[in-house]
Amino acid sequence: MKFNVAILGATGAVGADLLGLLEERSFPVEELRAFASEASRGKTLTFRGEGIPVEVAGPGAFDGIDVAFFSAGSARSLTYAPQAVRSGAVVIDNSSAFRMDPDVPLVIPEINPEALAGHRGIIANPNCTTIVTLMAAAPLIREAGAISLRAASYQAASGAGARAMEELSAQIRAIAAGEPVEVREFAHQLALNVIPHVGGFLPGGETEEEAKLRDESRKILGLPELPVCALCVRVPVPRAHSVAVWLETVRPLTPDRARDILAAAPGVSVVDDPMRSVYPMPILAAGRASVQVGRLRADESAETGLVFFVSGDQLLKGAALNAIQIAEALTLKGLSKWQP
Amino acid sequence: MKFNVAILGATGAVGADLLGLLEERSFPVEELRAFASEASRGKTLTFRGEGIPVEVAGPGAFDGIDVAFFSAGSARSLTYAPQAVRSGAVVIDNSSAFRMDPDVPLVIPEINPEALAGHRGIIANPNCTTIVTLMAAAPLIREAGAISLRAASYQAASGAGARAMEELSAQIRAIAAGEPVEVREFAHQLALNVIPHVGGFLPGGETEEEAKLRDESRKILGLPELPVCALCVRVPVPRAHSVAVWLETVRPLTPDRARDILAAAPGVSVVDDPMRSVYPMPILAAGRASVQVGRLRADESAETGLVFFVSGDQLLKGAALNAIQIAEALTLKGLSKWQP
Repeated sequence: MKFNVAILGATGAVGADLLGLLEERSFPVEELRAFASEASRGKTLTFRGEGIPVEVAGPGAFDGIDVAFFSAGSARSLTYAPQAVRSGAVVIDNSSAFRMDPDVPLVIPEINPEALAGHRGIIANPNCTTIVTLMAAAPLIREAGAISLRAASYQAASGAGARAMEELSAQIRAIAAGEPVEVREFAHQLALNVIPHVGGFLPGGETEEEAKLRDESRKILGLPELPVCALCVRVPVPRAHSVAVWLETVRPLTPDRARDILAAAPGVSVVDDPMRSVYPMPILAAGRASVQVGRLRADESAETGLVFFVSGDQLLKGAALNAIQIAEALTLKGLSKWQP
Repeated sequence: MKFNVAILGATGAVGADLLGLLEERSFPVEELRAFASEASRGKTLTFRGEGIPVEVAGPGAFDGIDVAFFSAGSARSLTYAPQAVRSGAVVIDNSSAFRMDPDVPLVIPEINPEALAGHRGIIANPNCTTIVTLMAAAPLIREAGAISLRAASYQAASGAGARAMEELSAQIRAIAAGEPVEVREFAHQLALNVIPHVGGFLPGGETEEEAKLRDESRKILGLPELPVCALCVRVPVPRAHSVAVWLETVRPLTPDRARDILAAAPGVSVVDDPMRSVYPMPILAAGRASVQVGRLRADESAETGLVFFVSGDQLLKGAALNAIQIAEALTLKGLSKWQP
């Protein structure tokens, strides 16, 4: 069984990884269509050695499509997702447009695949920092329950898109050459700096990213009241988000038991031999499918708690890979089986 | 009244700032002597327009010295501090050698100046991350008490010394030129990366830096049981440490009240207007005397708690400036008044 697949946002950072992963993981693609904005019209992408013309989505764009991956921002998702669903496609949406919609499953396949059942055509892919954090936290929470979760993030430039990643490179070249640094994509210079500002600010002083980490974690874990407090910070790293996590558990969990649980968790690598300078880092996690967890120890400031450090490629597991895994889960049983 | 002053470690990153601050703050220096390791013998430093020869410390090096600033690592402090004290000098030691000695005051002048009374010749300057964190946390703890403190750090390269800062610059130049990156000072490449490893690892998986933040905070705050859990991370920033802090307080403290307290606290700048992209950042804090605090809001994961982001120049307030402020406090009343 093969599927007609579309990517909306095919020329972006996540789009490029979607294209690569569809090929690398031998997703059963019958026909592939690539959509992007007007600026990319006429470009050609390569898939399985063939040129794919970049199109601009319009009326009827998703006719005949079985699976559509959306990664072009919330506004375009709100415009095109209903149209694609009416055309009969299942939309796997990487934007935040539908994530908190109670009728839309928000899915990390290793954590809550059961949420796929009964979808109505749109599946939301969670926020990248949420995915990276929960890949490590969720298996521990399943075992020991959760009282609270606190997270301080170290987020890569590419979380803000391909242009943001290029801006960091350009800033580094400018600094090396002793030239002035240009700032466009971020609020401030990112090279040689850290910026405690990811996403827009909400009234109350939280950022959208921090609110997403709380709200999406609650939905994915099925713990609507879980206290989650995040402080999200952009760091001058091209790729892979890291997160320092404090997890207070209901039942005690020793660090050794936690490492055993994580070693058995799909999609997670325990990278935790500090005496040999082995721990998660963006430079190691970039380009890898699995999320790395290490520096795991008891949080002595809680009665029962753990602290650990996670690094994960936020364009892969944090976005494109998670989306493909959702598609794989859906297509494994035949797309239609999942719908009500 | 003027004082004969010595700096041990005068050619290091902190030493350079000590020299600059003694001049800038018009510390009443009668004579200045500069000591460093064998490799720097013969170099000349400049102080108030005059050349100061760099000497290597040996027997009698501190004869006639009133105030000696030590910033040459624990081993040299252990060797030379007792000798300097016997010569009649007061030693202000930036190493960790004596910090946890119950007979040695560990002082941040804005927070616990009373600890200076009755010193026995050695005053310890706290760890840089501890100073930056407590400059913001201590005024809040004084007002509302503390149940626990959690900290995730974003530490600058220069916290590991002048060579480490140069290594980061060299790595950035190599990356810009497309050349291989050399790693010597840190365990891994720091440019375009973050490394959750500051100081050596202790049995149990904590780093020395994380243990210092706990143990020194307890001593400075006079709260020997306070639960403190830190996760310390090196980031590719040349100068100024940042820390994400979760503080659980005994009594409730609104964010507005906390900002008022911090605005009135000496040495602290409230930099907290996120809607206008104004918050603490290393690029702003570097070279500044005050520690910046912002992104302050309620920690919804605690009954009574706050979360905030601090940035401070760890070579200035985190080291050299704090040491000079200790000397200023001591000399203001005449050095001898403070001793038992």
